[in-house]
Amino acid sequence: MTRRVPVVEKITKANDRLADANRALLAQHGLASLNLMSSPGAGKTTLVEKTVAGLTGRYRLGVVEGDMVTSLDADRAAAAGAVSVQINTGGSCHLDAGMVGDALAQLPLGEIDLLFVENVGNLICPASFDLGTEAKVVMASVPEGDDKPFKYPTMYRGVDVLLLNKVDLIPHVSFDLDRFRQGVEALNEDLTVLPLSCQTGEGLEAWFDWIAGRIERARAAS
Amino acid sequence: MTRRVPVVEKITKANDRLADANRALLAQHGLASLNLMSSPGAGKTTLVEKTVAGLTGRYRLGVVEGDMVTSLDADRAAAAGAVSVQINTGGSCHLDAGMVGDALAQLPLGEIDLLFVENVGNLICPASFDLGTEAKVVMASVPEGDDKPFKYPTMYRGVDVLLLNKVDLIPHVSFDLDRFRQGVEALNEDLTVLPLSCQTGEGLEAWFDWIAGRIERARAAS
Repeated sequence: MTRRVPVVEKITKANDRLADANRALLAQHGLASLNLMSSPGAGKTTLVEKTVAGLTGRYRLGVVEGDMVTSLDADRAAAAGAVSVQINTGGSCHLDAGMVGDALAQLPLGEIDLLFVENVGNLICPASFDLGTEAKVVMASVPEGDDKPFKYPTMYRGVDVLLLNKVDLIPHVSFDLDRFRQGVEALNEDLTVLPLSCQTGEGLEAWFDWIAGRIERARAAS
Repeated sequence: MTRRVPVVEKITKANDRLADANRALLAQHGLASLNLMSSPGAGKTTLVEKTVAGLTGRYRLGVVEGDMVTSLDADRAAAAGAVSVQINTGGSCHLDAGMVGDALAQLPLGEIDLLFVENVGNLICPASFDLGTEAKVVMASVPEGDDKPFKYPTMYRGVDVLLLNKVDLIPHVSFDLDRFRQGVEALNEDLTVLPLSCQTGEGLEAWFDWIAGRIERARAAS
């Protein structure tokens, strides 16, 4: 919609300034931080739960949960053992850096090692808003189909790691892993792709290793 | 994001006028028309394919396909036997009534009985933009989880029929159909819910019957 572009540009510029402030605050605390994005129901919250549980005793996690109206996800993250803050966006289809900045003010940043920001379930709008995290993660899931990289290129181009969830469902659906990988490579050649299943636990160790690498790097840089 | 609201209101008012024009044009041709919305990968395009094939010989379908960048979906609809037009939204996260009006001008409206408008895969933004169709359809899918009505209430409140796709996957995932139905009923008490599987064909006949009812009604009203 052409007529929206100038407004959106102003909004994203204002957002970028707030994202820089978040980035500086997170760096000051030597914190690794991830902006986790996906379509609705790909499994973001279950991943957060499994990650909190899997890293217990090694690292402490903080979670910012974005959702239109409920606190279902923050409740789940808290139950899993994370320090969590809920952001309700009302009607908005994505988190922005201002919302995340407000959430950061409510978190004990000196007491955590990794901040997870779980974005609103949406493969389009969140891709346009930098939150100031030092990495962006997109989670795809097998039942969504192997054509998603072709159809949502902005999202796939802009991320640092891709999690392909629900690989346990591959025998039950029509999904061509080679076609999916070709779509990803065409957009983001060197993207790390981690196939996993939050249901069976397959592939989660590789994900935990990836996170541990980010945490150690953020610490070393601070 | 509060600062966007006035702009969004102006845009939706302009959109509503264009939607009214689409509605009048469709009514003039006695056409049933559906705005089909879902998250990415719920199965909209496969449903369009199955519906075109299932109604062949009884009714003629026209399809408007909304997508950010590709024509993959319009190609599939055309291969299935529908008259199809592709709208590429560029970066936009939803169809609007102006885009659909442009597409209507390219379709032989006098030669079809039902118009399918397949929206961009997104459970949030499309709910705010009336396209001028006489019915709105949301498609959920089992792997997305049973909590989606609670999390995307605007979408579930505003639709006329709900298709729950991929019921063949219920044995393989954690999905509580009662919880899902409770969420739906809390938002939209009398909503028709049609469980189905585009993979196995289960439930498709009930969907075809629902469509036939809409087509006969639109004809009778014109």
